[in-house]
Amino acid sequence: MINHDYNSLFKPKNIAIMGASNNIQTFGTMHLLNLISGGYEGDIIPIHPKQEKIAGLKVYKSIKEVPTQVDLCLMVLPTKIVVEKIQECGEAGVGSIIIVSAGFKEIGNYEEEEKIRNIAKKFNINVVGVNCIGEIIPASKINMTPIPIYPEPGHVALISQSGTYACHTLISNQDLKFSKIISLGNETCLDIVDFLDYCRSDEETKVIGLYIEGIRRGKEFFEAASKTTPKKPVLALIIGSTEAGSRSALAHTGAIAGQSNIISSILKQTGIIQVETGLELLNSLMCLSNQPIPKGNRFGVITVGGGPGTVFADLLEKNNVKVPKLSEELQEKLRNTLPETAGVSNPIDITFDRDWGNLFKKVPKLLLKSPEIDGIVLYGIFGMGFFSKIIEGSPIDLSFMKYNEEMADMFKSVVSKELKGLINLGKKYNKPIIGSSVFRRNDDFIIKFCQDNGLPVFVLEDSIKPVINMVKYAEWKKKLAKN
Amino acid sequence: MINHDYNSLFKPKNIAIMGASNNIQTFGTMHLLNLISGGYEGDIIPIHPKQEKIAGLKVYKSIKEVPTQVDLCLMVLPTKIVVEKIQECGEAGVGSIIIVSAGFKEIGNYEEEEKIRNIAKKFNINVVGVNCIGEIIPASKINMTPIPIYPEPGHVALISQSGTYACHTLISNQDLKFSKIISLGNETCLDIVDFLDYCRSDEETKVIGLYIEGIRRGKEFFEAASKTTPKKPVLALIIGSTEAGSRSALAHTGAIAGQSNIISSILKQTGIIQVETGLELLNSLMCLSNQPIPKGNRFGVITVGGGPGTVFADLLEKNNVKVPKLSEELQEKLRNTLPETAGVSNPIDITFDRDWGNLFKKVPKLLLKSPEIDGIVLYGIFGMGFFSKIIEGSPIDLSFMKYNEEMADMFKSVVSKELKGLINLGKKYNKPIIGSSVFRRNDDFIIKFCQDNGLPVFVLEDSIKPVINMVKYAEWKKKLAKN
Repeated sequence: MINHDYNSLFKPKNIAIMGASNNIQTFGTMHLLNLISGGYEGDIIPIHPKQEKIAGLKVYKSIKEVPTQVDLCLMVLPTKIVVEKIQECGEAGVGSIIIVSAGFKEIGNYEEEEKIRNIAKKFNINVVGVNCIGEIIPASKINMTPIPIYPEPGHVALISQSGTYACHTLISNQDLKFSKIISLGNETCLDIVDFLDYCRSDEETKVIGLYIEGIRRGKEFFEAASKTTPKKPVLALIIGSTEAGSRSALAHTGAIAGQSNIISSILKQTGIIQVETGLELLNSLMCLSNQPIPKGNRFGVITVGGGPGTVFADLLEKNNVKVPKLSEELQEKLRNTLPETAGVSNPIDITFDRDWGNLFKKVPKLLLKSPEIDGIVLYGIFGMGFFSKIIEGSPIDLSFMKYNEEMADMFKSVVSKELKGLINLGKKYNKPIIGSSVFRRNDDFIIKFCQDNGLPVFVLEDSIKPVINMVKYAEWKKKLAKN
Repeated sequence: MINHDYNSLFKPKNIAIMGASNNIQTFGTMHLLNLISGGYEGDIIPIHPKQEKIAGLKVYKSIKEVPTQVDLCLMVLPTKIVVEKIQECGEAGVGSIIIVSAGFKEIGNYEEEEKIRNIAKKFNINVVGVNCIGEIIPASKINMTPIPIYPEPGHVALISQSGTYACHTLISNQDLKFSKIISLGNETCLDIVDFLDYCRSDEETKVIGLYIEGIRRGKEFFEAASKTTPKKPVLALIIGSTEAGSRSALAHTGAIAGQSNIISSILKQTGIIQVETGLELLNSLMCLSNQPIPKGNRFGVITVGGGPGTVFADLLEKNNVKVPKLSEELQEKLRNTLPETAGVSNPIDITFDRDWGNLFKKVPKLLLKSPEIDGIVLYGIFGMGFFSKIIEGSPIDLSFMKYNEEMADMFKSVVSKELKGLINLGKKYNKPIIGSSVFRRNDDFIIKFCQDNGLPVFVLEDSIKPVINMVKYAEWKKKLAKN
């Protein structure tokens, strides 16, 4: 029933779209326009019975009239004509079809889905959907969703039973780079097991995120998961674990209610890491895609504020990540480097130090090269640009203080040198570094700088859950190694 | 030992600063410059033994030479001269002193702190600190911290044993409006109990946030808390509950280790709501300061995405907030309003509806006026501005679609009319509305618009913890009413 040659789905040489028009306010048109704006380089072929041109592109009246072989067809059509159009695609030799159209199992219409399955099987077509939102394949410059986000190619695969979580929510984390984003919808043909199998051997994919409302093939999922987690981390957000959640999931994609406890136990047995929120999932995927897996669970906390250092230590230790007291030897080395006021036992608190070299270089280096520590959380990723507010806001002429100039120099040096040095230290010692700040990507350009250079930075305590999940994966790998 | 007339601390007619200079890179100078830039309207009086002018202001060699009575003095001085300078302040009749200087109890120097206490008592001075970061009093245009943030006057009091959490971390939530922000430091004289007592009867304060590393006066804290929570909500982040956290807190402000379990039980008995992170605290304070307390725990979830609706319902129901199935009668009313594809049982899922009137007006109104629902979470606060990316990014001329114009009109209408209408609905029915988005304040101006008009909006699941904490307070009030 499955084509298993996914090239027509992920690297199509051309894409037909049924359901786009020149009316911008329809989903099909938004899919088309995103495909254009995302820079897809293959042929885009709108299919429409009446229009001559759509978005300036030549239109064919039916898929059968298209003179070349079509790799991929996107359908955003009225429910009642979907089956007919799939039949036409089959006869025209289309390799893959993504069906956005809804109105099937999720509202009790099982019959039409069965018809789709039969046609897909007969013609050996990869069918994604129905009732999905589309796919985003950055390496192929494909965004076939209604949401205008164009992430860069990277190593995170996201396989989602929620369309919103497959595209819309990604706006909240603009620095995550993807290999594949697939919205599954009702899983009429291809399902979460198929794509987990695919991503396991996909060389572009280093880490996999799942949004799960229900598992249709339990045994196969168990097997696919068991084979995948030894190779790469898999994280999952399970939804529908309460009465209200189940009610919502059933209406959403026709998922069977009350499965979530079973799913949770499958995850535990197969080493998939369960997360609680979409934000936790996205942040954790980022760290697992661009940081080394820690060798153990002992983390150093470096902080320019006592409060956050204490909170971080608490949150980590409550979740099986140790913030161990450093050896007297290592403390002595830190003491020799830092001012008297610094805390050196771990957390390393250098609040009253204003030497960037200590924060970004000397202290991280001492911790990273020590066998006592498996990774670092660093609170204090700030550009100093915002301090110019002090001068800009002043009603008194403060230019004699040469504040801006001094600070600009310091800032530049931090960005270009110290932070790159920090990132290189992580690579050299092959240990993860997770940054923490009070700024977000659009607040201060240093955050964008770090993220674009492979150092994940989150706001305050948002840095902690990704560390916990990295350690969970490290512990799973250790457990596998023992068996 | 306590002055108890806090006017010199919160509404000083003038402020002396010891420890500022013309070197911008010292803490004292940064305190001074923030005071100037924040727009403080009283006299600012630098005290310095050598300088003639600092930041353009006339300098006095000592506090005794100042010809007028000084209300408030900030000290950022070397540890060893602090006692002497406090003595001078006492003799000069200064009302309040904030001591930023460190190097006391937190490093074992108990003796000097005892001296400070004695002088404060003798001269009846309000002493805040030592080892604190300062205070921010927006109504008096006072920012006496090194961090350039100038929040607007509002109803949140923040009393913090962490200096970082009292100013620096607030940058992460730029829309929170404060009555008072006080950094306690070592609590040499005034402590958390004094300020909890003060804020209880402070008319500007509607909700209180605490960062606690340790409680020095347990009985008095219990009493102060018991008297406060019936009047206004109090939320607390307790830090130092693990071995590493305790180690960190001890080094930080000399807090006694291992108290956190005791503190947690005090909080529970007195109705203070314990939170897990600083972000949760700030977000919850915002909702409790500008939304009505819900009458019960039954929430409606309105969503433009099935996935987030399901996740929200799960997270709420796991934490004692009900997302009840709506009555057949109310579902019928929703069905009559919404398209066939909508989910109406709760969550109300209107993913495929593109009628802003439904999302921001009709559905919220039906829920808010119903006795079945005590408040609303709404996922779908988006300006449509970001959709113009589709057109802007296109290599093809798409101007014939009139996308920008249409969308700009729709956007404007949403901002100016529908969202204001939504905010007014909340006021009319006196029930809380919490918004959720994929954008943050600096990403899309609609978020700023909502926040500035009193509708809290958070990213994705960050909306949920504040709802849970609001319901916790509602339940506490109910419990008190029964007794």
